[in-house]
Amino acid sequence: MGITQTEGGVTAPKGFQAAAAAAGIKYQGRNDMAMIYSEAPCAGAGVFTTNIVKAAPVKWDKNVVDTSEYVQAIVVNSGIANACTGAEGDSCCRQTAQAAARALGIPADSVLVASTGVIGAQLPIDKVTAGVQLLARGLGSDRAHSISAAEAIMTTDTKKKETAVTFSLGGKTVTMGGMCKGSGMIHPNMATMLCFVTTDAAISHEMLQKALSADVEDTFNMISVDGDTSTNDSVLVLANGMAKNPEITEENEDYRLFCQALNQVMTALSQMIAGDGEGCTCLFEVKAAGCADKAQAKILAKSVVTSSLTKAAIFGHDANWGRILCAMGYSGADFDPEKVDIYFESAAGSLKIVENGVSTGYSEETATRILSQEKVTCIMDVKMGEASATAWGCDLTFDYVKINADYRS
Amino acid sequence: MGITQTEGGVTAPKGFQAAAAAAGIKYQGRNDMAMIYSEAPCAGAGVFTTNIVKAAPVKWDKNVVDTSEYVQAIVVNSGIANACTGAEGDSCCRQTAQAAARALGIPADSVLVASTGVIGAQLPIDKVTAGVQLLARGLGSDRAHSISAAEAIMTTDTKKKETAVTFSLGGKTVTMGGMCKGSGMIHPNMATMLCFVTTDAAISHEMLQKALSADVEDTFNMISVDGDTSTNDSVLVLANGMAKNPEITEENEDYRLFCQALNQVMTALSQMIAGDGEGCTCLFEVKAAGCADKAQAKILAKSVVTSSLTKAAIFGHDANWGRILCAMGYSGADFDPEKVDIYFESAAGSLKIVENGVSTGYSEETATRILSQEKVTCIMDVKMGEASATAWGCDLTFDYVKINADYRS
Repeated sequence: MGITQTEGGVTAPKGFQAAAAAAGIKYQGRNDMAMIYSEAPCAGAGVFTTNIVKAAPVKWDKNVVDTSEYVQAIVVNSGIANACTGAEGDSCCRQTAQAAARALGIPADSVLVASTGVIGAQLPIDKVTAGVQLLARGLGSDRAHSISAAEAIMTTDTKKKETAVTFSLGGKTVTMGGMCKGSGMIHPNMATMLCFVTTDAAISHEMLQKALSADVEDTFNMISVDGDTSTNDSVLVLANGMAKNPEITEENEDYRLFCQALNQVMTALSQMIAGDGEGCTCLFEVKAAGCADKAQAKILAKSVVTSSLTKAAIFGHDANWGRILCAMGYSGADFDPEKVDIYFESAAGSLKIVENGVSTGYSEETATRILSQEKVTCIMDVKMGEASATAWGCDLTFDYVKINADYRS
Repeated sequence: MGITQTEGGVTAPKGFQAAAAAAGIKYQGRNDMAMIYSEAPCAGAGVFTTNIVKAAPVKWDKNVVDTSEYVQAIVVNSGIANACTGAEGDSCCRQTAQAAARALGIPADSVLVASTGVIGAQLPIDKVTAGVQLLARGLGSDRAHSISAAEAIMTTDTKKKETAVTFSLGGKTVTMGGMCKGSGMIHPNMATMLCFVTTDAAISHEMLQKALSADVEDTFNMISVDGDTSTNDSVLVLANGMAKNPEITEENEDYRLFCQALNQVMTALSQMIAGDGEGCTCLFEVKAAGCADKAQAKILAKSVVTSSLTKAAIFGHDANWGRILCAMGYSGADFDPEKVDIYFESAAGSLKIVENGVSTGYSEETATRILSQEKVTCIMDVKMGEASATAWGCDLTFDYVKINADYRS
């Protein structure tokens, strides 16, 4: 469809700059703040946690996205989440945005803020505002700057997460880039997930929000269980129009291509989060096929990908299909267990392990070889229709427990 | 209320015998089958998994409980769950019951069967029926027999689980005993939970089923997340009437006392399962208080007790209240996060750590001391009403992962 994977992240599109800084908020000896800045005002869109307990930056950003004329910068910190922090937490967001506004010469209500880290602690606001000064002075649009920014927002992540694509709209080359942080957990998005997408496409605020809201259903919400969201989860998209394509203001062909590009970027970033689960050793992809409708397919795929017993079995390279059928059975979706086929696939091959609800008498040795890869796919066919859905997660390992028992100390 | 804790398990009530045998079904060098037998025919009641995928013994037992005139024996095996085994699995249940019927001289439709272990494998029926012969010959009513039976049904359990109480109905001394197996998991009842309660009370089948169905809502269903049930979960109760109390056939005073005794037995067994979670180091009790209604209280208590992040923090003796508030926030229950108080309690003391949604500035040292006990209680007060609910779970440890990565091999 004319969408090409390219090098880079949030600074790949025209007019976007990024920076990282070591503000000493909680971590020592590493960058813990990042900034994204657009030379031109942007249409902005956001999707946020559905948790009743919303961190201060989520409340700030939702208001900015809904009411500001435009957005132009994002300030992010890692180490402290600024969640459950009351009025002082709200004030921190305002002071951070005001500091960035002064340093960049833009309105405070065009500055988005995001935080990730420990819940309940207050941000050291003096360090944050000092960090904002460093960020504004350090902005740059080259590859090194996007790498540093992607690294600065990591918490328990083991790898930075960036991607970018180019495509053509109305004869103009358009670029879209993104970075994110997050670790797939037992319930994947109980960890804070932050995602920032930039594009030089020209698109209205309304259409950008529509595209983003629809896309998260098939991407970030498929590495999560509905409702099991952290206090800080945020996906923010900025579009500055500097590619000079005809502005997208309705659901035309350009809009559909834009949505495909957004899906490609968000799917890549979702898989990076799922595959970098805390302590995990593999990306676990689960496809529910042959379903009566998409809703059923999503419920089945998510139930299996979040089953702790299944995830522990994947870590052990054990084709424990009983746990998969069990997780399908308690998902709440209706199906006939005696019609289910189950397959495992990876770079090492493909194997049908269950047919009509019972074992095919497959080779355990072959199964173990297939399960010993960096990406493992499980396909469940319930033979009820044509709908399907894919969810992403990871295996459950010793290190997951270690990370989460020790995280705060 | 005149209910006295006493020594023993399923053989404590009059007329009940038990046995254990080493049938070599999967485990070597240990007992892997158990039998409970009543000298007199019993009223029987059962509550079973809500999983769509139901193991063969669950289907067999549900039919026996619903349609048989009486029940008189239970045959249990550990090692293989007889789940996802198709027609052959159903046949195994029938053959097991027939073998017990012949050996004991009772009808096959008065024999209940139960299995726990690996899903998907077929039972070696010859070993099972040979085991039934050993069991029938080995029956006895003394303490040693109930201990052996309770040990034979263990899988990943680290301790046998038994309890018994006595109370008085119509001037007669009535005894109730129980044993169970099960390990509290991340979603606690994804592990198979089997529970067997015996009593010499005289009570009709209808009233016994009513008492059992009501009680599991406050006991075994509070160590579980609704719907996240294994393929084999079963709670079976047998009442043989040998205490010669006036038979309970309506909701009178005797029925209410019977229900209290049942609740005491089932609560004790539930806590034993929760506190013997796979790899766990402590029993984690969560009370939601000040709730608008019982439904809200249950949702909040269960969401916190099953939060993997909270459970990992408890293992680390870390008062990570942000994770507790987060788990309340995504539970689906409505409340005001800025009104929540949170307390931790244990044998080492009590501490208010959150008031109106923010930290009380408590001593981390005191908190760690309170959290370093064998039983830790978290109380959340949402200040909306008078309702409360309690859920039980355990911490999440390295050993949980080890057990579940290696379990099948």
